[in-house]
Amino acid sequence: MKIVIFIIDGVGDRPNKYGLTPLKEANTPNMDKLAEEGITGLMSAIDIGIRPGSDTAHLSILGYNPYKYYSGRGPLEALGVDIELKDGDVAFRCNFATVDENFTVVDRRAGRISEEEDKILEKEIDGIEIDGVKIIFKSSKGYRGALVLRGENLGDKVTDGDPHIEGKKVPEIKALNKESKKTAEVLNKLLKIVYEKLNNHPINEERRKKNLPVANIILPRGGGIYREVPKFYEKYNMRGLCICETGLIKGLAKMIGLDVEEVKVGDYDTIVKKLIDGLKKYDFILVNVKLANEASHDGDYNKKVKVLEDIDKMLGEIIKNINKDDVYFVLTGDHSSPIEVKDHSADPVPIVIWGKSVRVDDVKEFNEFSCYKGGLHWIKGEHVMKILLDLTNRCDKFGA
Amino acid sequence: MKIVIFIIDGVGDRPNKYGLTPLKEANTPNMDKLAEEGITGLMSAIDIGIRPGSDTAHLSILGYNPYKYYSGRGPLEALGVDIELKDGDVAFRCNFATVDENFTVVDRRAGRISEEEDKILEKEIDGIEIDGVKIIFKSSKGYRGALVLRGENLGDKVTDGDPHIEGKKVPEIKALNKESKKTAEVLNKLLKIVYEKLNNHPINEERRKKNLPVANIILPRGGGIYREVPKFYEKYNMRGLCICETGLIKGLAKMIGLDVEEVKVGDYDTIVKKLIDGLKKYDFILVNVKLANEASHDGDYNKKVKVLEDIDKMLGEIIKNINKDDVYFVLTGDHSSPIEVKDHSADPVPIVIWGKSVRVDDVKEFNEFSCYKGGLHWIKGEHVMKILLDLTNRCDKFGA
Repeated sequence: MKIVIFIIDGVGDRPNKYGLTPLKEANTPNMDKLAEEGITGLMSAIDIGIRPGSDTAHLSILGYNPYKYYSGRGPLEALGVDIELKDGDVAFRCNFATVDENFTVVDRRAGRISEEEDKILEKEIDGIEIDGVKIIFKSSKGYRGALVLRGENLGDKVTDGDPHIEGKKVPEIKALNKESKKTAEVLNKLLKIVYEKLNNHPINEERRKKNLPVANIILPRGGGIYREVPKFYEKYNMRGLCICETGLIKGLAKMIGLDVEEVKVGDYDTIVKKLIDGLKKYDFILVNVKLANEASHDGDYNKKVKVLEDIDKMLGEIIKNINKDDVYFVLTGDHSSPIEVKDHSADPVPIVIWGKSVRVDDVKEFNEFSCYKGGLHWIKGEHVMKILLDLTNRCDKFGA
Repeated sequence: MKIVIFIIDGVGDRPNKYGLTPLKEANTPNMDKLAEEGITGLMSAIDIGIRPGSDTAHLSILGYNPYKYYSGRGPLEALGVDIELKDGDVAFRCNFATVDENFTVVDRRAGRISEEEDKILEKEIDGIEIDGVKIIFKSSKGYRGALVLRGENLGDKVTDGDPHIEGKKVPEIKALNKESKKTAEVLNKLLKIVYEKLNNHPINEERRKKNLPVANIILPRGGGIYREVPKFYEKYNMRGLCICETGLIKGLAKMIGLDVEEVKVGDYDTIVKKLIDGLKKYDFILVNVKLANEASHDGDYNKKVKVLEDIDKMLGEIIKNINKDDVYFVLTGDHSSPIEVKDHSADPVPIVIWGKSVRVDDVKEFNEFSCYKGGLHWIKGEHVMKILLDLTNRCDKFGA
């Protein structure tokens, strides 16, 4: 028996003045078929009233306690751009940015510099050594990058080297504990070196000629220390694949040792194909699709309805091609993202487990107003894998 | 107010291809009457997604955290054959078996040697002393026995002295931690002594003449250290009785200080009688009936339906004879045992609390598809006694 967990990022919502949510309003016959034939409920990825990130929510749903295993955004970003991390590496997300000669930030995104230009500038930073600490740097999407410090005695508790608004100086990075003193020192030295290397770099001279903001600094933020965690196949004895559209989920999947198929955002035909193909090779597949959450961040109700209907069509293609006797299929979200909040919330999400031998309940629709009546009641993320291991007879018995 | 907890071992199931479970299919008017007049729900004895043994499940339902108090199968087996254990005793389950002169196991059950023969051989083993450790041995049902080591510095973390299949040698018992070194040494010496004492014992000479496998060794397994636990009457200030059909539940009841009435398997008239009589003397009665679980282990759907209908008739006799104003009656299971699994699963079981003053809900049938809609929602085993203590006004107030 195989397992698919299909996560619609930010799926849940709060009702608008007509009492409707995008999920309630959207025409989703395939989600409803899953609900009718499966066992449903509500799910809080971390706990009731805890507002999760996508990363911490996914960890929890996959059976990794995020309070124990979450290492901050930096290492996930680095793993997401295929940097091979080692235990103890300290990693940061970065923006390429523009500073004046006083280190005041003029453009936090360096005029949204292109990836092609980034790739050239990246080489100036990657490989620098400061006080025995090796710098690994890789640019990622748009003006972004991932920065890794590798060496002895590095902590991750430092302030951001990013003022987060323009018109302010790049702040001096400060250690927040003793163990992170060296990290702060190395970073402050690094930013000076980066400025010297990049400010008059040919790429930037070219941009100056075109009156474009130069990329003469990087702004590190979201630092975290990477720690090896038990790999998914060791923990569950299942070969696992993650199909996703974002670096964050990719990084998380790599952190726990899932193979990864990254797909262009919204390319649902490819997701269907990779899922069906993947089921031939893998015991477990995690899918994450991000556009419903994006619509919520934009506060765009109608767009979220449309995205959910698109996802529903994709689900129709998927369930047409999988056999309930071979696969347990879980449809849920990582967290709610209410349109009115334009961000994640702690509201639980609907969940359905569909497959042979589940105790089918009376719920016939997949939304916030139906699934709370289901047979799963209100579970937590940590229960999801346990229930699935039991359904697929992979669960050890405690006692006689 | 008195309390009865009636446990149908392995009661829950997963739906078959017609969407039915034995409990849903069986004609159980008395269980349904309890559901209709009581408050219902689902119950996971240990936690959601945890697959319990009967022993750990019963501990949890009785308010004993199994992660703290469960000592493995050995001590329960020993208590079940009425060995009086002392704190620190290390106990094992054993089979009488047949080995050749190289200690290769020829028959793991010694030709299913009779209890009468066991009783004679038992005396050869019981009372041996090795390196200051006293050996207590008592035969139990069929070819089985319980072995206890009593002495200083004995740990219970040792490998089994049982190859678990025939044609293999009796393995050397190894300590899995420092504290268990002496236990392993004593056991290895014991097995040699047992072989010398039993191989040419008159009972076995007689069996050789009849071409029957001899009982010339014991194979210890499932070791556990016995620790005194708070007794039921100290914990709850109630005199408690356990009516059961198996040594395992008997052992568990003795471990927590319940009086025990052991009943022949399936002798439901006697159970009714002992229960009604018991209510005159005791404040609390636990009943465990095992045949539904046996049917599940055999994968026999129709047998499970029939067993549940038999149990329903017994329940009719019981509730006819007890007064809702005097007794809270709880009907539930310790765990599910789906026919398709032929073993325990983590699926929750239905539960009903019947008695004066419960908040009767809309549920009118006792099965997996009705009780999830009940007023108790989805509780854990640890909640059962707490709710009952409160209903019977035995619960301390926390605060003012």
